[in-house]
Formats: sequence, C-alpha cells, structure tokens
Amino acid sequence: MPDAAMEQNSAYKRLEARFRQIALYGEVASVLHWDAATMMPTEGASPRGEQLSELRVLGHRALTDPVMEDLFSAAEQEDLESWQRANLREMRRDHRFATALPDDLVAAISNATSTCEHVWRDARAKSDFAVVSDKLSIVIDLTQESAQAYGQALDLDPYDALLESYAPGVRAADIDPVFNDYAAFLPDFLEAVTARQAQKGLPVLPKPVPVAQQQKLVERLAGATGFRFEAGRIDVSAHPFSTGYRGDQRITVSYRENDPMASVMAVLHECGHAAYEAGLPAAWTRQPVGQALGMVVHESQSLSVEMQASRSSEFLGWLAVQASDVLGPDPAYAPENFRRLQQWVQPDFIRVEADEVTYPAHVILRTRLERPLLSGDLPLADLPGAWNQGMKELLGVDVPDDRRGCLQDIHWYDGAFGYFPTYTLGAMLAAQLAEAAHKANSEIPQALARGDFSPLMQWLGDAIHTKGSYLEADGLITQATGRTLDATAFKRHLHRRYLEG
Amino acid sequence: MPDAAMEQNSAYKRLEARFRQIALYGEVASVLHWDAATMMPTEGASPRGEQLSELRVLGHRALTDPVMEDLFSAAEQEDLESWQRANLREMRRDHRFATALPDDLVAAISNATSTCEHVWRDARAKSDFAVVSDKLSIVIDLTQESAQAYGQALDLDPYDALLESYAPGVRAADIDPVFNDYAAFLPDFLEAVTARQAQKGLPVLPKPVPVAQQQKLVERLAGATGFRFEAGRIDVSAHPFSTGYRGDQRITVSYRENDPMASVMAVLHECGHAAYEAGLPAAWTRQPVGQALGMVVHESQSLSVEMQASRSSEFLGWLAVQASDVLGPDPAYAPENFRRLQQWVQPDFIRVEADEVTYPAHVILRTRLERPLLSGDLPLADLPGAWNQGMKELLGVDVPDDRRGCLQDIHWYDGAFGYFPTYTLGAMLAAQLAEAAHKANSEIPQALARGDFSPLMQWLGDAIHTKGSYLEADGLITQATGRTLDATAFKRHLHRRYLEG
Repeated sequence: MPDAAMEQNSAYKRLEARFRQIALYGEVASVLHWDAATMMPTEGASPRGEQLSELRVLGHRALTDPVMEDLFSAAEQEDLESWQRANLREMRRDHRFATALPDDLVAAISNATSTCEHVWRDARAKSDFAVVSDKLSIVIDLTQESAQAYGQALDLDPYDALLESYAPGVRAADIDPVFNDYAAFLPDFLEAVTARQAQKGLPVLPKPVPVAQQQKLVERLAGATGFRFEAGRIDVSAHPFSTGYRGDQRITVSYRENDPMASVMAVLHECGHAAYEAGLPAAWTRQPVGQALGMVVHESQSLSVEMQASRSSEFLGWLAVQASDVLGPDPAYAPENFRRLQQWVQPDFIRVEADEVTYPAHVILRTRLERPLLSGDLPLADLPGAWNQGMKELLGVDVPDDRRGCLQDIHWYDGAFGYFPTYTLGAMLAAQLAEAAHKANSEIPQALARGDFSPLMQWLGDAIHTKGSYLEADGLITQATGRTLDATAFKRHLHRRYLEG
Repeated sequence: MPDAAMEQNSAYKRLEARFRQIALYGEVASVLHWDAATMMPTEGASPRGEQLSELRVLGHRALTDPVMEDLFSAAEQEDLESWQRANLREMRRDHRFATALPDDLVAAISNATSTCEHVWRDARAKSDFAVVSDKLSIVIDLTQESAQAYGQALDLDPYDALLESYAPGVRAADIDPVFNDYAAFLPDFLEAVTARQAQKGLPVLPKPVPVAQQQKLVERLAGATGFRFEAGRIDVSAHPFSTGYRGDQRITVSYRENDPMASVMAVLHECGHAAYEAGLPAAWTRQPVGQALGMVVHESQSLSVEMQASRSSEFLGWLAVQASDVLGPDPAYAPENFRRLQQWVQPDFIRVEADEVTYPAHVILRTRLERPLLSGDLPLADLPGAWNQGMKELLGVDVPDDRRGCLQDIHWYDGAFGYFPTYTLGAMLAAQLAEAAHKANSEIPQALARGDFSPLMQWLGDAIHTKGSYLEADGLITQATGRTLDATAFKRHLHRRYLEG
C-alpha cells in the first residue's frame, strides 16, 4: 500500500486542502485590511466591513465544519511524515480555538468590543475612565466567559487559555517569575542609567525633515535588512504595521516631520516582522505548520532588528552617517549625540513611546492588573487608582490623567486580554537570541557597524524563520539558545548597553 | 398568510442572501484586481492568481449549487414585488450562464486562453501572426463549443449567446443592419470631414507636461463630472480602467508626458463608467437587478461623458481654459486650436487610438471577421489578409504589418468573441441618449460650456443609472429615448460636430 498521506483522498490531504483554502481567505483579508489602512476612501469602510465579515464567516465555517473531527481522527491513523504530524497538531489547535466558543458568544463579543472600542475613543478624548467603565465591564465578563470556554477546550486555566491564543505554550506560571525578576531589577538599574546619562546633559534633537527625505532613508534601511521591493511595499498609515505573505509583504509607517528617526526605527521594527514572514518554510506555505509561531516569537524578530541590532552602538555609528547623508547635515547626527538620542532612557506614562528599559514596566503593570480584572478581584471602579499607583511604584511617575493612564491603549477595550505580556517576552527572547547569535557568529556586530544585517538575518533565518511552527515554543527557543526563555540575557544586554557602553 | 417574500426563510430571500454573498466575492475580487494593477509588487502575482482563483471557485460553487433550481422554482410561486421578479429573472440569467458549461470545458478554456494570451504577446512583439495561429485555433474551437453550450442553455444561436454574455438582449440580427448602415455612410462622410479639416491645416500639438500637473487637471475634471474622492480614488496603471462599488470606486489612468490631454480624456471616459456604478439603485445593492445592464449600456455611459459631452465644442471651450490654467500656457490650448485637436479625425490602423468617426470601422471589421472565424468559414491562415483587406475597404489604409493589424488587440487571444460590437453600439447609444437628454433639458450644452456636468449627469442618473437591470436593454433604451437603438442619432451627431461645427 502506498504512503497513505501521499494519496489525494487521504484524510490528511483533505485537511491540507481545506487549510490551504482557509489560508487563502486569510491572505485576501490581509490585502483588504492593508488597503483599508492605506488606500481606501472613507466611504469604503462600510462595504469593506461586510467583505471582511463574509471572509471571516467563510474561514470559520471551513474550520468548524463537523467533518473535521472525523478527518482528524482518520488522519491520526495515517502514515505521516514528522512535519505532517506537526501540521496536524497545529490544525487541531486552530480547530479547538474555532470550535471552543458557541456562536452566540462570538457574536456577543464582537458587538461588545465594537461598542466598547467606540466609547473608549470618546472616553479617551474626555480623559474620563467612567465614560467607558460600563462597556468595559461587559467586555470583561464576556472575555472571562470565553477564557473559561477556551480553557475547557484546551484543558488550561482560563487566563492561560487567553495567553495560549496569542502565544502558544506561554503560561502565567512562567511569566510571573520572569516579570517579578525584572520588576525587582528595574528601580536600581533605572536610577543608575538615568544618573549616568545625566552626566553628559541632554542630546541635541534633530531638525524637522520633509517626509519625502525620510522615505528615502526608510527605503535604504529596509533594503539593508533584506526587505525586497520586488516582493513588498512600504506605505503610509496612521499606525505602523506589517502584513502580507510570501511574495507580497506590506509594511506601513507613519511619518512625523519633527521626529525623523521615529519613522526609521518603526520601519526597522516592521522589517523584523516582515523578515520572519518572508523566511517561513516555503514547502509548508498555507499550512498551519508553515506559519509564524505566535506573538512572542514574532515580537522577538521585530525587536531583534529594531532594539538588539538597530539601536546597538555599532549600528548607530553607521546609521548616523546614513541619516546625515540622506536627511542632510544636522548636529543631532554627530555620532555620539546620535547614539545617545537613540539609547535615551526616560520613565514616562505612555507605553508606545517608552524606551526598552522602561517598556517592560508598562507591560508588567498591565499583566498584573488584567488578571484580577478578569477574575473580578479588582473592581473596575478601582482600575484608574490601581493603574496610577502601579506606575508610581514601577517607574516613579505620577500619571496626570486617565488619558495618559488606563485609557491610553486600545487592547482591553477591544477585548485583547493576555496580549500585553507578549511584548516583553518578545523583548527578552530577542536578547536571548542575540546572545546565541553572537556566540555562533562573532562577526555580527562588526557587520552591523557596516550596515550589513545579513549575518544576523542569516542566523535568525536558520534558527527561527525557517522553522515555522514545526517545533513548539519551548522547543524552538531551547534549540536556538540552549535553554527556555528567562530574563537573564535581557538584563545582561541592558547592563552592557546602558551602563558599560 | 404574510407576504412570503418578506419571510427570511422564503426561497426568494434565501436566493437574495446567496446572491449577496456572490456579490461580496465579486467586490473582494475587484479590490484584488485593482491592487494587482496599481500596487502589487511583481512577486505578488503568483499568490494573487491563487487568491482570485479561489474566489472564482467560491462564486461559481455558490451559483451552481444544485439547490438553486429548487429555490428558483419555489421563488416563482412566491408573492413577489415587481423588482423582485426582475431580480429573479437576472438571477436565473446568471445561473444559466454559470451552469451552461461543463467544468472540464471551463478548465480547458482557462488553460487555452492563458497560453494563447502569453504566445500572443510574443507574436505581437515579432509582428508575426503565424506564431500564435495554432494557439488561437484552439481558443476558437473551445469558444465555439462554449457558444453552442450557452446557446443551448439560453435557447439562442451560438454567436447570439456570446453577445448575450456581454450585452443582454443584443442579437446579431440587430447589429447587422446598424453596422451595414454605418459602413455605407462612412466613406463619403470621412472624405467630407477630412477635406474640411485639411482646409485649416494641422493644429498645434501641446508641449509635454509633467505627470504631477496632469494629475491636478485630471482630479479637477473628475470632480466636475461628480466623481467624489470620499468614495473613490484615481491611480496609475498600465491601461486605464474603472472598478469598485458603491462607496469605493477606483479609476486608473496611464499618463504620457508628451500627450497631456490623453490622460484627461481617458479619465473622463472612466468617470462615465464610475458615475453609472455610483448611481445604481442603492436599495438593490449586491443583487443582480441592482447591477449595471451589460457592456453596451456601460460603454454608452463612458462615451456620454467622454465623446458626447467632453469633446463637444461647448465643453472644449471651457476645458481649454482649465488646461491652460493647470498645465501652463501653451499655444495648443488656444480655444480654436484646442477644439480642432480634440475633434481631429484621422483614419489609422490602431483601434484604441481611433477618433469617434473611424472607431466604428475597426469594430465593424472585427465583428464581420469573428463570426466566420468561429464558424470555420474563414480559415485562420486567411485572417491577416482578410483583416488588411477590410481595413483598406473600410478606412482606405494599408496595414503595414500584423502588429498593427490582426495582432493589435488582446480580445480574441483571450477568448473574448462577441465583445467588440459593444463598443460601437455603446457609442451609438450615447448619441441617442444625448439627443433625448438635450430634448429633455436644453440647458445641458450651456452648462457644459461652464464645465458643469450636473444637468447631464442628473438626466443620465434618472434615465439609466438608477434603473439598474430592472428593465431589459430594449425596454430601458425605449423608455429613455422613445425607440430602440439605431445609428441615426450617431450619424446626426457626427454630421453636426464634424461638418457643421
């Protein structure tokens, strides 16, 4: 009998065909989302919403079709290669998430988050948490309900099930010691760093630069990371993101004339995401096993390029010359001033503007608050106070108002609980990967000093990109770095960059 | 018993829901096609092809589902409003076309046209029809086979079935007298026009204009026709087209620096198409009855704006001032010179560059050749000779080579037989509509002389756009103009513009 999985009518092959369709719907949706953010005229929003909703229904229907259970059972009995077994594991994972929630709960969440997000914009404009508190309460109840349903389907605690939905394999019990470790490390370290940088005074800020010139620099740098314009584009949107698929990757940036380096660093971040997607295993295209391994690993790739490589002193020396060359001469681009600007540490209220030292504090605060919010142990009315107190304890700053406090991020109001930790776990993984990469190839820093990302990208490609979701997260990280994820490499990295550099 | 069609589970309502889905797939495909022509990087072509193919399969499957026949039969028995009856008629029409061809014939046509189109590009580059003759022969055989299958399904002659697929209600027997009438009218008329325009010598050609300035003029003119940038965009592609749907219409233009008015006239043409789509009945959105009524009526709308309105002497007076204002002063924009430029008549080889007087000759030639090609009465080896002889007879020009002869258009090589007549029927309908419009509102020409399209667009909206496919073509044309389509208004229009103007 021939290899069962080779036959077109094997259960496994039928599953592959179905997941290929689902992936195609996803590709189409990614083009529609990109278009909505970059090109679509305002009145296109309503039909676009209906198109995307129809695509979601198609994908959901294909994934939750009653025939799937039978196909999974039959495929388990077939003679599969190891990557096909891994694919089956990932298929089952997608299927479990898709079937875990009853349709009416999915609809209720969709309605509640849509309403809450809308009211949140108003609350933020008014800087008044009370405006959105009731709507958030509904979102929290429904999120907890879905967390319980996911948990039941996946045999996980409810919060772990939410984490799992964003970052396979990540558990609250693993996060706690890592985050507590960092929270304990931060106060003294922060004091030392800010004292040290104060000795040399404030760096000079760059002059405003027209967008067209920033675009030139952005394109040059994207090219340096390996971004290929034959297989991608860079456009403008309100918030930077990257999307797309093999052969067609779309990065967006938001340019600010008076902060020319912000667009450059944002695009380097997105290039890290794009390199991951571009480097996924071609042979497994449109199969779950060929996809990126969740948000922690994804963020580790963007931060490998942005934080580890592009804000290294080696690379900044080269970048200062490029900035001067493309944007025009400016005292801000003098090498030492430029390095200090890009490595400046400043405790502040806003997560998305935070440097890499203080960023984890923002994430730790949210992670510590979202669990009692979901369980009901923290009443919603107490959220602003708990938030402000946490910011004071972690970063020593006094939050002036809700707008710059618990209303600053869309995530919770949009139903995204369990998402925040992935940012900082990604930052820590990036540091751990950088140590392993430099150990494997000591030329990486010198190459970056010439603006050459290729040795780094080669290593990341081999260790991470080409693996897809073949291994689970712990296995991938251990294979790449020799151990599971912890905060030690990240702390070493910060110490080297901010106290020894 | 309540109105059956009002119930969500009535057969008619189920059909509506299904056709809404099919329309959504079509909207999504239109965005993907637009993106492919304007934005997509080269390596995106292969995944885009797979995405579009998947969408086609989805739409085809929804339309050919065996349950449809039962739903149609049940819906016929339900208590429907008149627009719902018309919708059911249009649904059945779509269904008949979708089910007429066996799947293997559809696949064979797709393969054959894809190959033939590819080889045609090579043949055209080499200017050698023999290179593509064998591939075209296969396409012709398959097209004839599909014409017979369509004919059987629709109870039409094979060629009429092809016409019907592009222009509902158009029959070869209606085209022949109209085209013969024009072919008889043309030689003397053409001689009179060219003799008359020769008396005043050649007009001065405009200087080259940078694309950015052309874009400004293009946007101003699109706005004048009623194109709204809150609900649409104008971008660049290799060949101009318009696509999209209510709320999001996408027009493209191809700019040539040394021919600044070409982009302007092309965008005015596309604005006519876009105005039709924008003006379709909102209450019937995403239903067959709410869609445009085939290619003849569509082309009549683009030519109403481009040929009837924008090349009228009244409008050209205003346009000359705009051109001078936006593109900079140029002797070519002196009113009389500008009018003569835009109304210049010149027999030549290339259809897409032809003026409105000689354009029908190109179409008549193709229409006269494609029927014997399909039936086999004209052997393929004789096509270049028959083509060149026809051009000599109709326009008195000697075709120098195949590239400028029977290889110039993609249509046949892509399997589009029965399409060419719609261009000239559209031009004739535009003239017939213009007569009716001016009769109903004599202010239209004076408004155009001020650059004001609104009285014209108002009339076209009432008479054509808002009707969707509620009426069939003959009914719509008769309601709008008092009679069915003929060549008389077109000939009167040409006489007025070129011999009296």
